[in-house]
Amino acid sequence: MSEPMRYLLDDDEVPTTWYNVVADLPAPPPPALHPGTLEPAGPDDFAPLFPMDLIMQEVTQDRFVEIPGEVMDVYRLWRATPLHRARRLEAALGTPARIYYKYEGTSPAGSHKPNTAVPQAYYNAKAGVRKLTTETGAGQWGTALSFACQMFGLECEVWQVRASYDQKPYRRAMMQAFGATVHPSPSDATEYGRSLLAADPDNPGSLGIAISEAVAVAAPDPEVRYALGSVLNHVLMHQTVIGEEALLQMAKAGDTPDLIIGCTGGGSNFAGLTFPFLREKLAGNISPVIRAVEPAACPSLTRGVYAYDFGDTAGMTPLMKMHTLGHDFIPDPIHAGGLRYHGMSPLISHIYELGLIEAEAMNQTDCFAAGVQFARTEGIVPAPEPTHALAATIAEALACKETGEEKVILTALCGHGMLDMAAYDKYFEGEMVDYDYPSEQVADALSRIPQVPA
Amino acid sequence: MSEPMRYLLDDDEVPTTWYNVVADLPAPPPPALHPGTLEPAGPDDFAPLFPMDLIMQEVTQDRFVEIPGEVMDVYRLWRATPLHRARRLEAALGTPARIYYKYEGTSPAGSHKPNTAVPQAYYNAKAGVRKLTTETGAGQWGTALSFACQMFGLECEVWQVRASYDQKPYRRAMMQAFGATVHPSPSDATEYGRSLLAADPDNPGSLGIAISEAVAVAAPDPEVRYALGSVLNHVLMHQTVIGEEALLQMAKAGDTPDLIIGCTGGGSNFAGLTFPFLREKLAGNISPVIRAVEPAACPSLTRGVYAYDFGDTAGMTPLMKMHTLGHDFIPDPIHAGGLRYHGMSPLISHIYELGLIEAEAMNQTDCFAAGVQFARTEGIVPAPEPTHALAATIAEALACKETGEEKVILTALCGHGMLDMAAYDKYFEGEMVDYDYPSEQVADALSRIPQVPA
Repeated sequence: MSEPMRYLLDDDEVPTTWYNVVADLPAPPPPALHPGTLEPAGPDDFAPLFPMDLIMQEVTQDRFVEIPGEVMDVYRLWRATPLHRARRLEAALGTPARIYYKYEGTSPAGSHKPNTAVPQAYYNAKAGVRKLTTETGAGQWGTALSFACQMFGLECEVWQVRASYDQKPYRRAMMQAFGATVHPSPSDATEYGRSLLAADPDNPGSLGIAISEAVAVAAPDPEVRYALGSVLNHVLMHQTVIGEEALLQMAKAGDTPDLIIGCTGGGSNFAGLTFPFLREKLAGNISPVIRAVEPAACPSLTRGVYAYDFGDTAGMTPLMKMHTLGHDFIPDPIHAGGLRYHGMSPLISHIYELGLIEAEAMNQTDCFAAGVQFARTEGIVPAPEPTHALAATIAEALACKETGEEKVILTALCGHGMLDMAAYDKYFEGEMVDYDYPSEQVADALSRIPQVPA
Repeated sequence: MSEPMRYLLDDDEVPTTWYNVVADLPAPPPPALHPGTLEPAGPDDFAPLFPMDLIMQEVTQDRFVEIPGEVMDVYRLWRATPLHRARRLEAALGTPARIYYKYEGTSPAGSHKPNTAVPQAYYNAKAGVRKLTTETGAGQWGTALSFACQMFGLECEVWQVRASYDQKPYRRAMMQAFGATVHPSPSDATEYGRSLLAADPDNPGSLGIAISEAVAVAAPDPEVRYALGSVLNHVLMHQTVIGEEALLQMAKAGDTPDLIIGCTGGGSNFAGLTFPFLREKLAGNISPVIRAVEPAACPSLTRGVYAYDFGDTAGMTPLMKMHTLGHDFIPDPIHAGGLRYHGMSPLISHIYELGLIEAEAMNQTDCFAAGVQFARTEGIVPAPEPTHALAATIAEALACKETGEEKVILTALCGHGMLDMAAYDKYFEGEMVDYDYPSEQVADALSRIPQVPA
């Protein structure tokens, strides 16, 4: 075992452009629609929430977008992130497969989220915005945006789902360490929040409520804008730094992936790793299978419908065509909070419909078992979200043990789990449960998605 | 800001030897003494606790000790660690000083502790040991040893101070994720623990009690040995990988440190960074000032006596000549749990007496203020322990702002604070206090150190 275990990049090797997969797709993704007119939404429909530079990135047809120097200067605090060869996991599994993982946990937030938080803060600061608002569940996104705002002198106001605010004080303290103001949501800082608290002072909140509060504060004030951590095209594009680096690092390792596996919630981590490889696949240079792994409790790709729906629970956003379980579907409280989203990124949904990627769903207890095996061999305790990808990776590696296939598997370890140890605790105590797929609740939620003529 | 912010090392640049500073000192350190005979302790006196390879490392006169290939193979999961230039902190301070920090938080435990946990587990496994026992306070050392034992197929049993066990469940879950058995101490697993629980079922425990329990299980069983995370010569030697890497990385940066600052508890992190630089200083190649920063609540170097004392509270170890506040002195409950040790490594104490290093003490609220400023500029939330070094670093950098001196400062960021956010929370809530120096308690404890004729 004296072969390399990590592949790094020198500063001058770090990619300086984001990749826009739309430029290479055989068919364009369906447009977002204005919820009132059902006409394609234009830049002005997004202007109350986002600065024009980001809106233009949302709709650009350019294949590559240059990363501003000011963003590169912040990226360089932690990028390039390492690509690891999981030699000790391979040995423990006794598999002939070669397993690589691209690790984003070395970032300030401990996940991939700062890759888009930093440019979002930059473009807002450039547009003269004073403050960004956002929602957060478990807190990864809120932490990343808090950090990014600090880098560009912006204020940051975060609405954190009250249940998480109370149960995960470490994440809240991280956001405060990065200078943010954090509200439990529902809060008394918005009219909507106050109305909910008046009806029920113990309202535990939801991501949808938190979005509504963050949007309500941002939209009417020209000095305040809103930031979203996944789902949208520009967010996914910012994350492609992951895959661009991984392409270079896999070349250094002298291997070409046969299978690329990422977890999906809103889809930003999955897109970040896989889109640059998809470009090379569409160009005929490589031929990996690309697979999304989602939680069985919130399986938008594998069991949702492909239809126009709202991005938020309250129904305030433009309509997006995506795989959805219904915009007011509330997933069971699995520990991978980052994957508890009712829909899937419209761009990933489109690519799935084009047959360019495959998908499967996993139960959380199987995922945590994989996470523990990974920790004990590779030394990194994974966040609950990427344990979904690790569980699928380990299953594939064990299948290779049966067939003898030397498959090259690349997976996305999008964050560490140091602030998720309460979930591991539940797992060790035998208190973690899996949830049956909530067919009735999904059918009920799907009955309320908007009707859009074909 | 397009200059480098991180200096990495390729795998083939990573040092493959540990450095033993004893070989270069102008005078040898005083020997450990058998507590009964007061004669110099021999290898047999340590044999019930440690394997012979480690005992030989404890007393070796060799300048360099080769790192076994099996240890290098585990180190390579995270080593070399990065050296960062703190350009954003410098800019925020407006200082002409150039600040570098060697960051050990990318390790499996999130600190420098695995640098010695891994070789300790290796040499024990090589000697046929089945299980290692240890104590832990906040949990950094227990986490590191749990991981290391997993790498070499050893069992690991940890006694964690009960107050920490109850208050820091995330650290306990980390140890369990790495496969360890964790007891709250006092525990019902040892006769000593049971006797304490019989007297007081709510005994909150102490590091001294936890050591006694871990030693009591290890000493009588030839298949079980004990591991210590700091203080001893071989532990400090293992940590010199930090400084050896930093020497190469500073050369890559093209800078030579004028001042090197590390925090000290038992001393292993400080020794790890500074000893290789001390070698170069003693050889006349460089001339940095080397400074230890300790907590004002537990100031063994700046206010302790230099005398023979026990390494543990119960008085079971050989006597070591060191700076001590008295072996049964219990420091106030500062949040830098890793610095709450009554003594200072005998080797560092000796080097301090030789006038080769200087020392100062800092209050924890000043340290946390520095930690927050560091997090908001550099993106890493530091553990409470290295905030002591950061506070001194920032004070020096601000002094340079007055004088205009372009001083090159190198500091040790020995771990991140993601599992210490409860302490930051207290700081943000204004609930963190500083403690007056406990003169009376120290005088009382010092009255009970053993009397050793000169």
